[in-house]
Amino acid sequence: MFISFEGIDGCGKTTQARLLADTLRERGHEVVLTREPGGSPGAEEIRRLLVEGAGERWSAETECLLFTAARRDHLERLIRPALLAGRSVVTDRFADSTRVYQGAARAELRALVDRLHALMIGIEPDLTFVIDIDPNEALQRAKNRQSPMPEDRFENRGLGFQRDLAAGFRALAQEFPHRVRLIDGSGSPDAVAARVRAAL
Amino acid sequence: MFISFEGIDGCGKTTQARLLADTLRERGHEVVLTREPGGSPGAEEIRRLLVEGAGERWSAETECLLFTAARRDHLERLIRPALLAGRSVVTDRFADSTRVYQGAARAELRALVDRLHALMIGIEPDLTFVIDIDPNEALQRAKNRQSPMPEDRFENRGLGFQRDLAAGFRALAQEFPHRVRLIDGSGSPDAVAARVRAAL
Repeated sequence: MFISFEGIDGCGKTTQARLLADTLRERGHEVVLTREPGGSPGAEEIRRLLVEGAGERWSAETECLLFTAARRDHLERLIRPALLAGRSVVTDRFADSTRVYQGAARAELRALVDRLHALMIGIEPDLTFVIDIDPNEALQRAKNRQSPMPEDRFENRGLGFQRDLAAGFRALAQEFPHRVRLIDGSGSPDAVAARVRAAL
Repeated sequence: MFISFEGIDGCGKTTQARLLADTLRERGHEVVLTREPGGSPGAEEIRRLLVEGAGERWSAETECLLFTAARRDHLERLIRPALLAGRSVVTDRFADSTRVYQGAARAELRALVDRLHALMIGIEPDLTFVIDIDPNEALQRAKNRQSPMPEDRFENRGLGFQRDLAAGFRALAQEFPHRVRLIDGSGSPDAVAARVRAAL
């Protein structure tokens, strides 16, 4: 099984990815827990180009190419070998994040993201959990977190942008109904984890 | 005018690009002389990911994405603004290098390079000079050069690969007859520069 967690910053998806990996291991599965952008040594180097520096460092189009390059490396070097070896892969973000973030920044980029994905990546997770949370609460959580400064580029664009993102992530459940499950992200991590397990 | 120089390592294209830029300036043109991969601050950072490290650091597909990301940045930040300001741009390598290098490594990659180019770059130089030289001589020149070690990845794959590349660069003149001029690269730099000026 290839499972992704998606949602806005501060929604709790990193915690939920870890908790689900723990649950799957307790049930006897071998699990690789990973994240994007990054997840393989090469992709982590590309991640540094993406998350550090000024917000205008790259155009949205160049960003799409760099995200796709990182994802291709992650897929080739970590995800696909793990799946072929019979392991499960749980990832904190995958291609849906690029769809939603670039599409929220400029709607016409969504088509470009999809064409790049079809050309260079091709696969989708078997199952995607979107952790849905009030953007006010998520933003507060993200602010309170001891996040390293250089990685704040995607987190400091304010509440309006977070609302657009949250709407974009929710829309994935309509667009990909066979694969995407919307999970209520309110309450304690254990309460959310119970909802994820029930949906699984 | 947007002019590119192409050819195998050691063919003399870097020198010829500089000499043509000098000639155009003497004739009163404002000229931006640049190179790929790189040419803009962001693209130079991507270049470091491409030219340093082990040969198997990236798959050919990830390399294509990184070259295209660097080219997109170079195009947006340097080439297009210069052309819009009425300057001429002379570049040491452009998209033809990716076509030929990736195509020589694995023939089926050529279609992928072309699709990525159509999707993300779109433009071609007005004029491309392919400096054609015997691969034996070019390899000897490249070896004698005081090239920084990390950048040798593309230069140490041996004579057979250089012959494939030289054939690939020559084939560009048939494929793009309106744009690509094949220049005999034998003899002194001044002799070659005179051939370039005559073709211009």
